Amino acid sequence: MTTLDQLLTGEPVVAAVGVAMLADAVAAQGARVAQADWRPPPDEYAWALDAVTVGGATAANEKAIAQMLATHPALTGIATARDVMEMGERTFFHAGPPIEWNDCSGPMRGALIAAMMYEGLAATPEEALAIGPTLELSPGHHHDAVGPMAGVISPSMPVQIVSDLESERVAYGTLNEGLGKVLRYGAYGPEVIDRLRWMEAVLAPVLAEVLRRRGPIDLRSIISHALQMGDDGHNRNRAATSLLLRRLAPGLIDGDGSAGPRAEVFQFIDANNHFALNLVMAAGKVAVDAASGVAGSTLVTTMARNGTEFGVRMSGTGDAWFTAPAPVVKGLYLGGFTADDANPDIGDSAITETVGLGGFAMAASPAIVGFVGGSAMGAVRHTMEMYEITMTEHPFYKVPILDFRGTPTGIDASRVVRTGVTPIINTGIAGREPGVGMVGAGTVHAPMECFTQAVEALAAKEVSGDDRP
Amino acid sequence: MTTLDQLLTGEPVVAAVGVAMLADAVAAQGARVAQADWRPPPDEYAWALDAVTVGGATAANEKAIAQMLATHPALTGIATARDVMEMGERTFFHAGPPIEWNDCSGPMRGALIAAMMYEGLAATPEEALAIGPTLELSPGHHHDAVGPMAGVISPSMPVQIVSDLESERVAYGTLNEGLGKVLRYGAYGPEVIDRLRWMEAVLAPVLAEVLRRRGPIDLRSIISHALQMGDDGHNRNRAATSLLLRRLAPGLIDGDGSAGPRAEVFQFIDANNHFALNLVMAAGKVAVDAASGVAGSTLVTTMARNGTEFGVRMSGTGDAWFTAPAPVVKGLYLGGFTADDANPDIGDSAITETVGLGGFAMAASPAIVGFVGGSAMGAVRHTMEMYEITMTEHPFYKVPILDFRGTPTGIDASRVVRTGVTPIINTGIAGREPGVGMVGAGTVHAPMECFTQAVEALAAKEVSGDDRP
Repeated sequence: MTTLDQLLTGEPVVAAVGVAMLADAVAAQGARVAQADWRPPPDEYAWALDAVTVGGATAANEKAIAQMLATHPALTGIATARDVMEMGERTFFHAGPPIEWNDCSGPMRGALIAAMMYEGLAATPEEALAIGPTLELSPGHHHDAVGPMAGVISPSMPVQIVSDLESERVAYGTLNEGLGKVLRYGAYGPEVIDRLRWMEAVLAPVLAEVLRRRGPIDLRSIISHALQMGDDGHNRNRAATSLLLRRLAPGLIDGDGSAGPRAEVFQFIDANNHFALNLVMAAGKVAVDAASGVAGSTLVTTMARNGTEFGVRMSGTGDAWFTAPAPVVKGLYLGGFTADDANPDIGDSAITETVGLGGFAMAASPAIVGFVGGSAMGAVRHTMEMYEITMTEHPFYKVPILDFRGTPTGIDASRVVRTGVTPIINTGIAGREPGVGMVGAGTVHAPMECFTQAVEALAAKEVSGDDRP
Repeated sequence: MTTLDQLLTGEPVVAAVGVAMLADAVAAQGARVAQADWRPPPDEYAWALDAVTVGGATAANEKAIAQMLATHPALTGIATARDVMEMGERTFFHAGPPIEWNDCSGPMRGALIAAMMYEGLAATPEEALAIGPTLELSPGHHHDAVGPMAGVISPSMPVQIVSDLESERVAYGTLNEGLGKVLRYGAYGPEVIDRLRWMEAVLAPVLAEVLRRRGPIDLRSIISHALQMGDDGHNRNRAATSLLLRRLAPGLIDGDGSAGPRAEVFQFIDANNHFALNLVMAAGKVAVDAASGVAGSTLVTTMARNGTEFGVRMSGTGDAWFTAPAPVVKGLYLGGFTADDANPDIGDSAITETVGLGGFAMAASPAIVGFVGGSAMGAVRHTMEMYEITMTEHPFYKVPILDFRGTPTGIDASRVVRTGVTPIINTGIAGREPGVGMVGAGTVHAPMECFTQAVEALAAKEVSGDDRP
């Protein structure tokens, strides 16, 4: 029976929206009532919501989202961080909004300790702790760069270069180390440092050579196919990693010289089904940066966490951060760990949700619930709910089970405030103590406070002081 | 709300089964009625259904399905057909039940023409047509072998060896040529013959060398992961092909001698997302053969089509074929072709459905509807319906969107007859004229007649002649 048939032949049902009293009254008279899960926004933000609408958000948002979707990301090369980004020997980039050493969470400190030892600034964790307060910390997001979890980028680290094929824009992302005891989750043992040195000495030059010889790898195409193959682009990247390996392998087969390092590189990537995550993130970075700075737009251009604070940026308010305490992630824990071991939410990886992937694309990725918890239908519901707060459906990232509907893309901060629906993010969970590494994975909602602040800040530009409450 | 809650709080609904008159009478009194789509089996088969049940089908079926599921298929090597299967220079194997040259459909003739030219028996299609009637045709299924579409295997062709890691059992499958103008769809142009020669001269020896050096590739593991990545194992094998390439690449990177042929082999497989199909089929062949010949069992062990007839074999009736005219496939056509160009159903590939994949696993593969037609929810419904006629849920092949429920596995011929539900198969469509090749892809139901014949044949063993109707 089609939906239209049901409309003609079905029993009538009352749909109620808003205060429950109305629905209760109708139900008391014996009618079937469906209560929509919606409440009017709190009165205190009404002026701001009015102001951003009056300010022409619709046209501004159309412009901003069009700029985001016009990007076409491709992996074009590998470089050393200090060669492509402005940084001194003690400049370390990190995930999320700006933070000082003293405010850093355990995993952020752990990652910075690992990076100091990798750079040779410190020989022991104790030495690193003493040097920590002298580091110049800066968000990767301020330097065209993103990194998952702690997101630490130090000057000697190799970075992947993701270019927008439609403009001169580039973004940089670290190379993914794998799961478990790794720098980005705050571990700093010898195996962590050794792996980082191998990545610098073998992984980076081999990949750089393959990319030089074989040309760019189209990431928009890989992500688009990966969503047809059960990836969400955030915590499930098995398909994207497989498709990336298919693109890299010909260059690894016919390279010059000894095959040993090329075989090692293949096996390293093959052993880590999250390898493509950092590329999806850098692809997201060129997209969101292209959409930044459109006057009046309520398009969210950044969601990122430093392990202490959750930060949001919005197109119409440019580089300003709107922050709130980082929330706690609900999820599945690795053997021996519990919620007590978990650090609050951390990482730049929520950029995937910012561009219509991750939690927003979970309907494409029912198998992810084995990693982050929940049910297959719950994964579908996450995606469905995100259509409430987004501006459009992604023209390339599509969900087969929804008959190839595009993923909900382009978070509208004013809709978040208006509906009370906050963005869903799926994410890894770092141990709260430095040195521990990964303890689990799960889902979390972005804090509402970031979005109300952003909308108020934009509204304040539109409304003169006297008209504000 | 849980289902149990709904039971306690929902409005009562009458469920009606069988003749519509009952449901109509209840509905006339204003009650809500759900009519189950089930009819009692035709009276004429009641004696046979009774007889196979009396004959202890339950225990026999438990034994047969356990034997099927105990197999653990792996790709272990590459051989030349004549070296591993008993065949003379003019013995050509084919898909489906036995057939004579004069009864062959266009694509079967086309494929045999291609094979005669490839073998050097004929220089032109005209010469091949003259030789055709002198060929010794035999079903691949009689020789541990399977092939998609025409399924032709001639003596010089390389075959993949799939071994059961739990027994001495092996099965053979051709190497997949790609889509479009290829032998298995009945094309025989120079590009078809050239490709077959390259497969013999380059593809087969390179793969053989990699497998010798690197050891077997676990197909159960690959298929199991591929179902989490949107494959159905029949017409969508993009994930299985990707995972196979990930297993082959290390051996292609570090092989001896010139990298040229190894790079060619990678690129050939990489260009064909159906490459893994033939391996999934051979994996199915070791499974169904392990389940054959269990006295009293109504487990279907073969569904295969030669382009003229659809054939079924059942465990309790051993090697006997039960055939009916091959049905016409409903589907999507490639540019320029229509249903008028389509040959009836052809190929051994319905072995995937016989082991709980293909049409039975379509809920895992919503993206397949872009290839075979239909909707994502239709794909889910196909899988749900097949639980009605199968014995168990596959312990390794699971469907994420159904919260990892195992695929419906082990077709029970008696349930097919009892319920009127016939197995759903998704499949490619060959052009009806020899030489054309592929014209589309779609879905088709196995003919009921094959299953009623099988059940009657088994019943005849259990019931003496005098007690039969």
